[in-house]
Amino acid sequence: MTLVDDARKGLLTTFEKVALIENIEPRKLCKLVASGRAVIPLNVKNSDRERKLCAIGEGLKTKVNANIGTSPMVFDPEGELRKAKAAEQAGAHTVMDLSIGKELRSVRRKIIKGVSIPVGTVPVYEPFVNKQVADVGEDDFLKSLESHIKDGVDFVTIHAGVTRETVTHLKKSNRILGIVSRGGSLTARWIEETGLENPYYKEFDTVLDMCREYDVTISLGDGLRPGCIHDASDGAELSEQIVLGELVRRAREVGVQVMVEGPGHVPIDRIACSVRSMKRIVHNAPIYLLGPLPTDIAPGYDHVVAAIGGAVAGMHGADFICVCTASEHLALPTEEEVREAVILTRIASHIADIVKLEDERKWDDEMAHARAELNWSRQINLAIDPVKTAQIHARSKGEDVCSMCGELCAIKQWLRRDES
Amino acid sequence: MTLVDDARKGLLTTFEKVALIENIEPRKLCKLVASGRAVIPLNVKNSDRERKLCAIGEGLKTKVNANIGTSPMVFDPEGELRKAKAAEQAGAHTVMDLSIGKELRSVRRKIIKGVSIPVGTVPVYEPFVNKQVADVGEDDFLKSLESHIKDGVDFVTIHAGVTRETVTHLKKSNRILGIVSRGGSLTARWIEETGLENPYYKEFDTVLDMCREYDVTISLGDGLRPGCIHDASDGAELSEQIVLGELVRRAREVGVQVMVEGPGHVPIDRIACSVRSMKRIVHNAPIYLLGPLPTDIAPGYDHVVAAIGGAVAGMHGADFICVCTASEHLALPTEEEVREAVILTRIASHIADIVKLEDERKWDDEMAHARAELNWSRQINLAIDPVKTAQIHARSKGEDVCSMCGELCAIKQWLRRDES
Repeated sequence: MTLVDDARKGLLTTFEKVALIENIEPRKLCKLVASGRAVIPLNVKNSDRERKLCAIGEGLKTKVNANIGTSPMVFDPEGELRKAKAAEQAGAHTVMDLSIGKELRSVRRKIIKGVSIPVGTVPVYEPFVNKQVADVGEDDFLKSLESHIKDGVDFVTIHAGVTRETVTHLKKSNRILGIVSRGGSLTARWIEETGLENPYYKEFDTVLDMCREYDVTISLGDGLRPGCIHDASDGAELSEQIVLGELVRRAREVGVQVMVEGPGHVPIDRIACSVRSMKRIVHNAPIYLLGPLPTDIAPGYDHVVAAIGGAVAGMHGADFICVCTASEHLALPTEEEVREAVILTRIASHIADIVKLEDERKWDDEMAHARAELNWSRQINLAIDPVKTAQIHARSKGEDVCSMCGELCAIKQWLRRDES
Repeated sequence: MTLVDDARKGLLTTFEKVALIENIEPRKLCKLVASGRAVIPLNVKNSDRERKLCAIGEGLKTKVNANIGTSPMVFDPEGELRKAKAAEQAGAHTVMDLSIGKELRSVRRKIIKGVSIPVGTVPVYEPFVNKQVADVGEDDFLKSLESHIKDGVDFVTIHAGVTRETVTHLKKSNRILGIVSRGGSLTARWIEETGLENPYYKEFDTVLDMCREYDVTISLGDGLRPGCIHDASDGAELSEQIVLGELVRRAREVGVQVMVEGPGHVPIDRIACSVRSMKRIVHNAPIYLLGPLPTDIAPGYDHVVAAIGGAVAGMHGADFICVCTASEHLALPTEEEVREAVILTRIASHIADIVKLEDERKWDDEMAHARAELNWSRQINLAIDPVKTAQIHARSKGEDVCSMCGELCAIKQWLRRDES
């Protein structure tokens, strides 16, 4: 029995729990999951653990994922665990372990054990970390997936849309950056070197069987996503989305939860169209975006660039946004960069949710009232990051006004003029 | 002879110089200034100084202003000068001295002398810094303006739209935060306490005469701008905009350059409508926005929130964006906060300009090519902040790939696979 099976039968147990957090009717959430418009990632292995669940999709708050993981150049599993915990603490709803250093399995287990939010991984990395491209066998793809699932991963990115056909479209494109997805590039190269079809595509029924057994949610990876605004929304990207849309329906048929990943890099005026077109092609499955980044000229500030793109994408229907740190394109991020990026992505998500959900602006109105009252402790408590807010306001040294305007404070001059 | 007079006669001298920087035909720029769709702030007193000019308005790159200034609680003129210089260095196109500490005139002269970009001020502060509200006389408003103009200020914010009538609309509103504009609140309170009409409105012809004499650009302040998303786009705000639209036409009639300031705080889905409606009401005068901030819950991160709102507003037609620092709503900003906020606002402006101007994305494409070549020094040189970019990338320790992916770099695996 998967969650989708429950949903289709109207068994509300899990939905009641999650609906409380989501501030939605359990029956409505149940319907969303039954129809595939929302997912609740949860490996059955974790169903009796204390896990902070979240629902991702239509009519729900925009969710935030943080990526962590070792790299071939920096192997520090404890450091990555600290990043994962910092992300959870900062309010990330899920975390993905994208480790490609060594001892992947032990790192993965450490992360799954170390956090209480759902954990995702990208099984395709593992064979390529251990073997040269040409030496990776078809069965290595599935073996890796099986191991991730059995370790208790709640959702897996499967780059099943990188196929012989879509790679052909890619080769005909005028892209500057080709493939920038790690899983996408490895898969495309493997297809090219072996001449074989992507096993995750060819054996998608087996992938579904495996995921169904542990009720693992599939996140269909966008291996051909653009790597710069020049490459955005081209034929190669769309050819992959069409395949992903077909796979969404196959997953739904067998009751496996599925969402779809998207770009990447998109000029700001194309984000609305990009998100809406994607929603249509993938049959309203939850959309999981990385960014999108509406400019390429700001390395060191891509956390801000992604917040800009993410807020716009969220407003137009993106359901799940992956954190992008200040180190993106430059280096493995630090713990503090991960933390800050989670906050920025939560801000972007809230900005979008103000538009999407009726009650979201109550938080803003409460802050406005606290400001109207010049009630600083209330402002600090209401802030998305009370610690940083308090630190900055501390420079104002305990006055009832802040050090920007002092007694010429506009609120004191007008709204509270009767008190002065 | 004002610049508008020159423009109307087709005298191209100044326009040729500025058009070069703007990458536009001098004749086209001349027409934009003649029609009032663009302004080039420059006090005649500065016309023989080496001054970095900029044009603001339709068809031009989105410009960035940074605010600095002493406060009653922090009086450090040298520190504010350092902030102004840091803002110029970081790429701000103009700077505004919003000082309300003491010795306003000496601080203002120091800033005007200390930077080579156009300087703006808000003359209405000065009488209220020196006197109690009820003691400020009608002539104090104009005297302050005269002193600012003669000191060589290139543009002045005039809150002429806060009138007895618009304050009446404000009082009928259901706002949480009343007035949050410093100049707006002081003016409204003065109107209320004295029963007199706003001298900048009543004597607008005199304001125009004064500005015309030194060819100072007027920035019509939005004294009734909303202070939270709840208060956005209400009748009070619009009633002021209608007045400002009328004043725009009066300024144009006598050849005085004019732009109009706007909100403030606006939910992200209302920004497009807010900017477009404002452009219409003010007869396509250049629009100068503060933010807008699409959420109120992120004090400490309002530089990021403003970048989100600014990018969206810029895309829909905002011409000039005022920097908002991380300290907004909390304290007087530090030099580093001003610097960072200028960079973020420039990023937001560039994201908008990619949409508005044909050639803007060349910069992004160059960066994409540098990434495709794994050419790190070129990426650093192209970055909007090369120093920060280099600092972060230094963590990758001189490899041809970065520490995020190492040899599993997607670009190495696919685009540059022939080299490995």
